[in-house]
Amino acid sequence: MNGSPPTSRTRVKRLPDRGHYDPETIHAILDAAVYCHIGYVIDGKPYVTPTSFWRDGDRVYWHGSSASRMLEHLAEGPEICFTVTHIDGFVLARSGFHHSMNYRSVMAFGRAEKVADDSLKRAALDGFIERLFPGRTRELRAATVQELKATLLLSMDLREASAKIRTGPPKDDEEDYASPVWAGVLPVHPACGEPIPDARLTPGTALPAYLESFAFARKS
Amino acid sequence: MNGSPPTSRTRVKRLPDRGHYDPETIHAILDAAVYCHIGYVIDGKPYVTPTSFWRDGDRVYWHGSSASRMLEHLAEGPEICFTVTHIDGFVLARSGFHHSMNYRSVMAFGRAEKVADDSLKRAALDGFIERLFPGRTRELRAATVQELKATLLLSMDLREASAKIRTGPPKDDEEDYASPVWAGVLPVHPACGEPIPDARLTPGTALPAYLESFAFARKS
Repeated sequence: MNGSPPTSRTRVKRLPDRGHYDPETIHAILDAAVYCHIGYVIDGKPYVTPTSFWRDGDRVYWHGSSASRMLEHLAEGPEICFTVTHIDGFVLARSGFHHSMNYRSVMAFGRAEKVADDSLKRAALDGFIERLFPGRTRELRAATVQELKATLLLSMDLREASAKIRTGPPKDDEEDYASPVWAGVLPVHPACGEPIPDARLTPGTALPAYLESFAFARKS
Repeated sequence: MNGSPPTSRTRVKRLPDRGHYDPETIHAILDAAVYCHIGYVIDGKPYVTPTSFWRDGDRVYWHGSSASRMLEHLAEGPEICFTVTHIDGFVLARSGFHHSMNYRSVMAFGRAEKVADDSLKRAALDGFIERLFPGRTRELRAATVQELKATLLLSMDLREASAKIRTGPPKDDEEDYASPVWAGVLPVHPACGEPIPDARLTPGTALPAYLESFAFARKS
């Protein structure tokens, strides 16, 4: 798969070795995430809003209440900056200066488009739940027309996107390697606790298999 | 401790019960985090950059290379939006519509200020490492004057900040509570793996106590 060449906005300028522009890398980082930060400008001022999202093909999708002023604003198609970040580890070097973090991030620029068609909306929203919890939409009642109307669904293409990745051990100054201080990486990852059943759960309801086996996507 | 009253930017309009404006709540969310997303505007377009940060009193601090164009731009004092987000759980409701996430987030607006004084810079950078790894700065060599010069340190006050929090079980439509589908919360939290010693570690170097006991701050 070939990516688009980086633009002046997406090219990683400092530490260019950390920049990646191929869709496989970008998609893998997006698919390992469950939320993003969306940046936008209102009256010349910056706003950054966290929201859950999902990828399908070369587009990302996010949704919320039709009453959300943020989503209404984005639906008008202003330029946005879509960012996803995973922290993978603390990098402990032999000097404070070379301490760092291992991370994977994606930054994409574009404009949101509203998905207005009810059947496309229904399929996309179901796809979001299925991506996390395969099989769950067959257990749930279908969304009502009122619920679809109350939901604003936006999407954006990934034409102008780049990834930035740091992995591996600390990079110390040569003369510091003789230091007796501990150096290395403390890995970090998201984890799940035990599912908490709702107090009003219908008695006898078993924990579904997709919750027993739930795992965040891992870096390949 | 009394917080500032919310401004038109920080007041949580939709779902106002989720809005919090007291410094205790805001500080606890910031202190449980190791990175933020900073939004800013260049030529009318939005940019969102993830970066590690720390809080000291009523200010947040972040740093990077003096050669970073992003940091250089922020040091000029444009308006920024500083956002921190924790995902605490997937909320599985009895309808797709009421699925949600439990989360804690902080959004703060302001302008960055450059910390130029070398001794303040040194103390702040040491404070960042100590906050994560108490005792480590006594093991590391001191930063050199060149390293301080190569580091740009910025800070911003938290005068215009708000928190947004969702906790607890799904809130279903009354008629859906009879549904046999599993409903509840799948908790999510950050976790650490086993520390990975650097390949060039001085033989015999023990794992420091602050890595044996490392834990992300937890929601109180």
